[in-house]
Order: sequence, then structure tokens, then C-alpha cells
Amino acid sequence: MGIEDFLPCDNEKINELLHFTAEVDKMTGIMRRTMLIDGSRRENDAEHSWHIALMAMLFKDYAPEGTDIGRSVQMCIVHDLIEIYAGDTFAYDLGANEDKHERELAAADKLFSQIPEHLGKEFRNLWEEFDAMETLDAKYAACMDRIQPYLHNTLTNGHTWKEGHPSVEQVYKRIGIVKDVIPDLWPWVEKNIQNAVEKGWLKE
Amino acid sequence: MGIEDFLPCDNEKINELLHFTAEVDKMTGIMRRTMLIDGSRRENDAEHSWHIALMAMLFKDYAPEGTDIGRSVQMCIVHDLIEIYAGDTFAYDLGANEDKHERELAAADKLFSQIPEHLGKEFRNLWEEFDAMETLDAKYAACMDRIQPYLHNTLTNGHTWKEGHPSVEQVYKRIGIVKDVIPDLWPWVEKNIQNAVEKGWLKE
Repeated sequence: MGIEDFLPCDNEKINELLHFTAEVDKMTGIMRRTMLIDGSRRENDAEHSWHIALMAMLFKDYAPEGTDIGRSVQMCIVHDLIEIYAGDTFAYDLGANEDKHERELAAADKLFSQIPEHLGKEFRNLWEEFDAMETLDAKYAACMDRIQPYLHNTLTNGHTWKEGHPSVEQVYKRIGIVKDVIPDLWPWVEKNIQNAVEKGWLKE
Repeated sequence: MGIEDFLPCDNEKINELLHFTAEVDKMTGIMRRTMLIDGSRRENDAEHSWHIALMAMLFKDYAPEGTDIGRSVQMCIVHDLIEIYAGDTFAYDLGANEDKHERELAAADKLFSQIPEHLGKEFRNLWEEFDAMETLDAKYAACMDRIQPYLHNTLTNGHTWKEGHPSVEQVYKRIGIVKDVIPDLWPWVEKNIQNAVEKGWLKE
């Protein structure tokens, strides 16, 4: 059972695309540190990617002028694909973050070579653009990628903060992009950091 | 723990959007009949929605001329949201399909009224357009929604076919839209139906 049972047709490109579709189903097994809001278990990369893609549609009234929501949504969908091979790197694990970039580049080479070249380039470009956080579309998508686990954390008694022990400064650094890109959300962010400190979920 | 711990800010619209973000996390608990390709468990609606949104990006060379891939991707993201309240209706459960439309309309009323009116309308329109399968964007998205579980079925020994006992005619009817919209995929579809009949996963 599994991809070894794939029955190809005569169209090699179609076979490649179907193979890739099957390969990326592995995103459902890449577990993140973030808990689901009902606290039942950790979320996986497929769930997280869907969730932030939806958020990109939902928060669009707050996207900086000139943001292409459709592109941001697509960035959200592909932004963690390389974790199929590189694994999820916990934002507050400083050791694992040291070789993160190297691991992810190798994963990208392996992953995006499995589809026709022009598609591989497009997917890779979207991921690299997201990662660089320089364009409007990437900054907006990055905000979704920060706010979603932040919201989950606030609703699960600070689960990942208690697990990773980041300092308040580290949390501010990670979510700080929201202050510039979606300033209307910032008061909510600050209020929740204060609350997390008061509750002892975050140490000052 | 959960949404009851939500700490609002002074901006009511931001609070609504964050609340909705938390509410739709319930998609991770709406289980489909389809198995993950590794056979470990059934997939949920969040995973499925992400998977077909990615497929809409992947198969775009085969989208009919004039398809707006960005819109199709967004349709894939919202197409099952109403199942948070209506539940997943198994395609081959004829009884459950009788009142499906009614249940889903009530769910849509409940769901899309939780966000600002213009956004609720947009999300609802995307869902209704998807459901009607009349526009190019909707037809293309519907193909992704059919091919993904079909691929999973072929790679998990026909799991849902064996569970739901559809006739070959029912399977053809459900996936038939692919023949018109993405004819290049049809030979692969047919080959796999033949194989499923030979293996006894589908009865003629």
C-alpha cells in the first residue's frame, strides 16, 4: 500500500504531477510544536499551511496596499513544503536553527526537482520569496505564519512558550513583523504578551 | 483552554477575524472517509483542503484556457468550510446526500455570519460557485476535489470504495467531470478504474 502501487499512464508529465501529489501528502506527518486549539494534539504542516492560507484571505482588508492576496495565499500553501525532507525546525530551538538554512536548501533541491522544471522553479521561487520576507506579498504571508501559532498559543495556556522557554524578547522578535505590516493587530499582540507574562507562560 | 480564553482587543473587527480563525481550526477534526496515502489514518478536511489547493497550483498547465488559478486555489481552501457544522457527507452515502444541501445551507448561514458582511459574502459566493460547478474556476477546482481522493483510493487498496461499495457507474459519474475539463488525465483515471475492478475493489 502506498506510492509503490502507483499505476502510471502513458503521459510522463501527468505521472510526475500525480507522484508529487502523493509525495506531498507526507506534510500530514510533519508535526509542529503548536497545539490544535482544542488541545487534543499537535498540528501538522498540512493543517497549518491550510490555516494560514485561509487567514490570508480573511485578513485581506489589513494587507498593505499593493499586496497580491492571491500570490500570498499560494505562498502560504507552499511555504513549508521543504519540511517534508528538512523537518519542522522549532522557532525557539537556537541549536536547530543554526543549520536550518542548509538543511532546507538541500530539501528544496530534492523536492522541486521532482516536477517539470518551470513548475519547480515557480514553487521554489515562491518559497524563497516567502523566506526572504522582503516583498509585500511575503511580509503579509509571514504575518499569517506568525499570528496563527501565536493565537493557538494564547488559547492553549501558552503551550509552546512553556515548552520552548523563549524570552519575551525572542517572542517580540519573532512576531515583530506584525507591528510594521498589520499595525491594527499589534494592540492585540501586545495585550497577549502581557497576559502571558502575568500568567507565567513567558518569563521576562 | 480554547476559545473561551480569547483575550479581545479594542478593535471589534480584528476580534471577529481572530475568533473565526480559531473557529475554523475545527476543520482538523472533520474526518473524511479517504485514508492518508501511508494508510495510517483517515484524512481531515484541513489536510484535504490544503492538498487540493496545492494540486490546483500543480496541474495548472492542464487548466482550461481562461481559468483563474488564484481563484480556483481560494475556492479549494474554502470549499469544505461549511462541514464544520454540516459534517462530511460521504459521496457514496445516498441517504446522507438527500438532505446534504439543506444541512449545508444552514451551516453556511451560521458560519459566514461570523465575519464582516462583505467577507462573509465573498466566502459564501466562492463556496456556492464551487458547489454549482458551472464556471471554469469551479470546474477546475472540482477536478482537484475528485482526483485527490481518487489517487488516495488507488494507493490504499481502494479503501473508500471497499467501504462505500459504489458501483463502477457511480465512480464514473463522480469523477466524470475530469474527462471534459482535464482530458489528458482521463486515460490514467480509466486505467485505474479497470485495475480496481480487476482487483475486486469495485464491483461492475
